[in-house]
Amino acid sequence: MENAMPETPPASPRQQDAPYVPTARTVPTRSRERASYDRELVHSVLDEGYVCHLGFLRDGAPVVLPTLYARVGECLYIHGSTGSRPLRAAGEADPGIPVCLTVTHVDGLVLARSAFHHSINYRSVVVHGTARQVTGADERRTALDAIVEQAVPGRSHDSRPANAKELAATAVVRLDLDEVSAKVRAGGPNDEPEDLSLPYWSGVVPLTRGYGAPVPSDDLDPAIALPDYLDRH
Amino acid sequence: MENAMPETPPASPRQQDAPYVPTARTVPTRSRERASYDRELVHSVLDEGYVCHLGFLRDGAPVVLPTLYARVGECLYIHGSTGSRPLRAAGEADPGIPVCLTVTHVDGLVLARSAFHHSINYRSVVVHGTARQVTGADERRTALDAIVEQAVPGRSHDSRPANAKELAATAVVRLDLDEVSAKVRAGGPNDEPEDLSLPYWSGVVPLTRGYGAPVPSDDLDPAIALPDYLDRH
Repeated sequence: MENAMPETPPASPRQQDAPYVPTARTVPTRSRERASYDRELVHSVLDEGYVCHLGFLRDGAPVVLPTLYARVGECLYIHGSTGSRPLRAAGEADPGIPVCLTVTHVDGLVLARSAFHHSINYRSVVVHGTARQVTGADERRTALDAIVEQAVPGRSHDSRPANAKELAATAVVRLDLDEVSAKVRAGGPNDEPEDLSLPYWSGVVPLTRGYGAPVPSDDLDPAIALPDYLDRH
Repeated sequence: MENAMPETPPASPRQQDAPYVPTARTVPTRSRERASYDRELVHSVLDEGYVCHLGFLRDGAPVVLPTLYARVGECLYIHGSTGSRPLRAAGEADPGIPVCLTVTHVDGLVLARSAFHHSINYRSVVVHGTARQVTGADERRTALDAIVEQAVPGRSHDSRPANAKELAATAVVRLDLDEVSAKVRAGGPNDEPEDLSLPYWSGVVPLTRGYGAPVPSDDLDPAIALPDYLDRH
């Protein structure tokens, strides 16, 4: 057994590879075995999406709105009109506003013999934190490019960048990836042993997502070909 | 012009056909032309989905979690373990807890010549209200059947109903459709007139959703055929 010990200790994990540190609000009260703080898993779930559901408070009540986002390293960015309520609030409130940002991918319908054990396969990430307005010009540009790239990789360099007027009308908000958890359910139904002989079909119906053929604008110059980065769609 | 007036006034719209009444928090501060209170539209968006994002407060901060739901008339139902935080809170707090429930369908990526006008086509419904635990046995059964049916129409009658122990472990929460709005973006990009001659592809990439071939459980009796209600998948 001694031989199994490495002669030199493994290098300490770099901070960027270490898992997120669980906190009271990222440890679920149930299905704890489905929760993960693995940084790579969290990144992969975030990187596969581009629409999140952002929760914030308005007059003390919760509000949940869908919005585009991008991940850049350990930061998430969202954007919107400077007139939109949450973005305005994130700028006005000095230390930012408390938010919860959630990204969910539904992977399949899980059909058990019992109604009770029906479920879905999914991967989700929940980020708790403080949303703060980004004011630096460079970071704002980086964030806006990233939001376009998150939805359509390759597109940010193949469109007209925002001009001064457009930039002035756009609020950019950052949420650091600090208090973060992923939750994953995969695999087949968890039927009760006594239900296995019941005459009901049981299994998983996978969900698929994809892209239809791109539809050019009516006024698009026919000489402009479909760009390579859309051919994958 | 007089002839254009109907001889008898039209019948008053039945309440169930009337639009939802806008309130301060269902009138958006921007893109108001995309907001709708049309009951049929709201129902159609809700009926097309089965996963919502539920926002609630925990220790004064917003939390957003994905969960299954069902619509039954003018009520939405969600369920969960009696140990889950929001469901427990909805039962403990006497008049219920304030929630925001949002359902979103992403229909396409909208690529404009300018980065600024990039967008997505989507349909969303946002419901504000108070979530209350359902205690009546009949309403609980109706809700649980509906949650299974919402994801897999036809399934609730082809699985073992919940037994007493399972029912006791399941909390059911109702949210009435009262303070509700839909938001829809459709169509091509809104390019600036001066951008139309730029050499960038412009148009919409439609998103598609579907189902893969159902995967039976390893322990499924091979004599049990795929039910008709899954053949559509």
